[in-house]
Amino acid sequence: MRIEIICTGDEVLTGKIVNSNFSHISQRLEDVGLDVIWGTTVGDDRVQLLDAFQRAGARADAVVVNGGLGPTVDDLSQEIAAKAAGVDLALDEIWLERMEAFFVRRQRPMPPSNRKQAMLPRGAEMLDNPIGTACGFAVDIGRARFFFTPGVPRELKRMLEEQVIPRLLARSGAPGIIRLKRFHSYGIGEARADTLLDGIEAMAEGGCAKLGFRAHYPQLETKLVVRGRDESDIARKLAPLEAEIRRRLGGFVVAEDDATLEGVVVAGLAQAGASLALAETFSAGQMAARIAHLPGADEVFCRAVVARTPSRLGAALGLDLADFGPAAAARSAEAVRAQARATIGLAMLVDLDEGADRVEFGGTLRIAIASPAGLVAREARIVGGREWVRLGAIEMGLDCLRRFLAGLPIDERTDFERR
Amino acid sequence: MRIEIICTGDEVLTGKIVNSNFSHISQRLEDVGLDVIWGTTVGDDRVQLLDAFQRAGARADAVVVNGGLGPTVDDLSQEIAAKAAGVDLALDEIWLERMEAFFVRRQRPMPPSNRKQAMLPRGAEMLDNPIGTACGFAVDIGRARFFFTPGVPRELKRMLEEQVIPRLLARSGAPGIIRLKRFHSYGIGEARADTLLDGIEAMAEGGCAKLGFRAHYPQLETKLVVRGRDESDIARKLAPLEAEIRRRLGGFVVAEDDATLEGVVVAGLAQAGASLALAETFSAGQMAARIAHLPGADEVFCRAVVARTPSRLGAALGLDLADFGPAAAARSAEAVRAQARATIGLAMLVDLDEGADRVEFGGTLRIAIASPAGLVAREARIVGGREWVRLGAIEMGLDCLRRFLAGLPIDERTDFERR
Repeated sequence: MRIEIICTGDEVLTGKIVNSNFSHISQRLEDVGLDVIWGTTVGDDRVQLLDAFQRAGARADAVVVNGGLGPTVDDLSQEIAAKAAGVDLALDEIWLERMEAFFVRRQRPMPPSNRKQAMLPRGAEMLDNPIGTACGFAVDIGRARFFFTPGVPRELKRMLEEQVIPRLLARSGAPGIIRLKRFHSYGIGEARADTLLDGIEAMAEGGCAKLGFRAHYPQLETKLVVRGRDESDIARKLAPLEAEIRRRLGGFVVAEDDATLEGVVVAGLAQAGASLALAETFSAGQMAARIAHLPGADEVFCRAVVARTPSRLGAALGLDLADFGPAAAARSAEAVRAQARATIGLAMLVDLDEGADRVEFGGTLRIAIASPAGLVAREARIVGGREWVRLGAIEMGLDCLRRFLAGLPIDERTDFERR
Repeated sequence: MRIEIICTGDEVLTGKIVNSNFSHISQRLEDVGLDVIWGTTVGDDRVQLLDAFQRAGARADAVVVNGGLGPTVDDLSQEIAAKAAGVDLALDEIWLERMEAFFVRRQRPMPPSNRKQAMLPRGAEMLDNPIGTACGFAVDIGRARFFFTPGVPRELKRMLEEQVIPRLLARSGAPGIIRLKRFHSYGIGEARADTLLDGIEAMAEGGCAKLGFRAHYPQLETKLVVRGRDESDIARKLAPLEAEIRRRLGGFVVAEDDATLEGVVVAGLAQAGASLALAETFSAGQMAARIAHLPGADEVFCRAVVARTPSRLGAALGLDLADFGPAAAARSAEAVRAQARATIGLAMLVDLDEGADRVEFGGTLRIAIASPAGLVAREARIVGGREWVRLGAIEMGLDCLRRFLAGLPIDERTDFERR
């Protein structure tokens, strides 16, 4: 099935907003085994919208259109869809009632301009939007089925999952249903993950599984799409595959599906009944900022102390520190733990290279974790510019904490280290 | 002049990477007064690339193509450009030498696959890429001039500025040159800025100025594009306009052009010979994280202390705190200043609403700044969910510091506050 995506709106066309809706739609369709073959971006312009709809209607089997369903005069999707489909616009009474109820719940009068949102091409199939006033709809233009979706990201996401993807899968004729399983890892690059997971797809019976990656330094997302007859068939096929992926990626997996590294750390602290104190240097408070604002973190997060030089960190911790060496890391972890009366103290000291920022600019990370069980420590060198070192330090610090809480070795070598 | 953008590559088409190159190209062209009227995204596929090039060549005057200039077999831009232009590929000896020199400087042998990057459509005009091996080029296809650019963002950005935009401006026939002036503000929404700046474009002689906005909460970017005969003509036209914009936006302007709020704060501290200590709660270390990693911040940044509850913040600062009220903010600012022996102590206490995250979830911010001149304080209520409150607290905290250092009142009301 040939699928196209058409994104509409002057704000997207002029780059005023980055078009993350396009990548979201495209990724989700790939996740369920559907391929997008063409993307088009046009502004709020009648001539160009009509041209875009007609071209896509001539060459695609299905088209997802995003944007242009709002109440203002530059929202043109319904009007041009009707024109391209050769029908007129008709008031959808059901959607009008839904909108009126929507405004009643918010105790506000419905502005007259919103009535426009209930005008759909005659004969269109309504696509429900339970969280907004923009009504989605499906209509045939040329040889393709068009699915019109709202530009507001959370409304788009919900309509895509609940309304559009099921219809696309039904039209694609692919049998059964699809499940997406995701693994988030830290410490391995895409090439190594690809090698480690060689043969996973072949393990699945009848080619029912597809593996993919999405790298966003310092983390890597590994995606496994499994197709099956029904939920129990998928569960049966998925179980050995996900177990094998976990085995091969081992301690590098930081979280699965919607979980995050920082969420896993907070949950690990809560489960251990442990509290945390941090001493940060060049990570500059960003380790704390990833953890401490989360719901539930106020229970487990004691304190972070941030300072940029050995003397200032020493002053904050009541130590005499001359450098950010291994001994300083150990002493800082012990000191911040004692000072905050926390169960666990973690120090992330970054000994930065001298000079201006450049690709060869690096830093040596010295991490120590003090706890009732004693002290563990690790050292790593990261090269790639100030920002690369900063991001690497934050992630490695949080990951050492995750590993420590999970009883894993904290010094497993990552692909991002030098030497 | 009708300009199109074609983005190529499976990673972009499948949404594996968010296509920020498109918005960058489109914004930069708008900044210099050029309008993009169509965007196309296609994968690494010969049939679709040829189709996309031919369609754009039939309807546009100029086309910017991004991606597909790399050394691998799925990089097809040169090959399909040659086919669409009806010419063959020829080795560009000059670029081959440039690439060989590039590898010599890096003390690595040039892989044979890179030779492909010097194969350009016969008769193409080379577009220099001083920082990579992907050679840009310009060629005519149909009735349009095509500009081929690399997918690596920093290579694209440089080639766009130095090679593509000057050629597009020359072709557009618009007289003279263009300057973009940017103002970054915090505290006013786009609608209010639009009202405040009403009539600015009309002040400029002969419609030489165009105003635009780009909102990214909590900051707003105001862009002024001025056209003139030459640099001195632009300087003469721009001076009264930028003075008037500064006057109207007043204390809300946090930085101009490439400067940032956090950079202005660090420079302000350095200029005052002052050092800074922070006490953070729900902002969770993110105020420190914005400042403390910057070059030069190690001179002025003394310490940040992060804690989430009154008792834990009190323990860290040697105070007995029962709440995050106004008195607690004042005492915390004094205490962190004294403890760190800093010139300035700032406390950002956030009294969060109870319950689960929701759109109506809010927080009351209590900010105090202690210095040799005494104490200043401010309170604000922000509503819109946990993340909205968190981002608002970070920005307001940094902005209060900027205002304090600039001698401005810190309690000027923003559009993001309730009551």
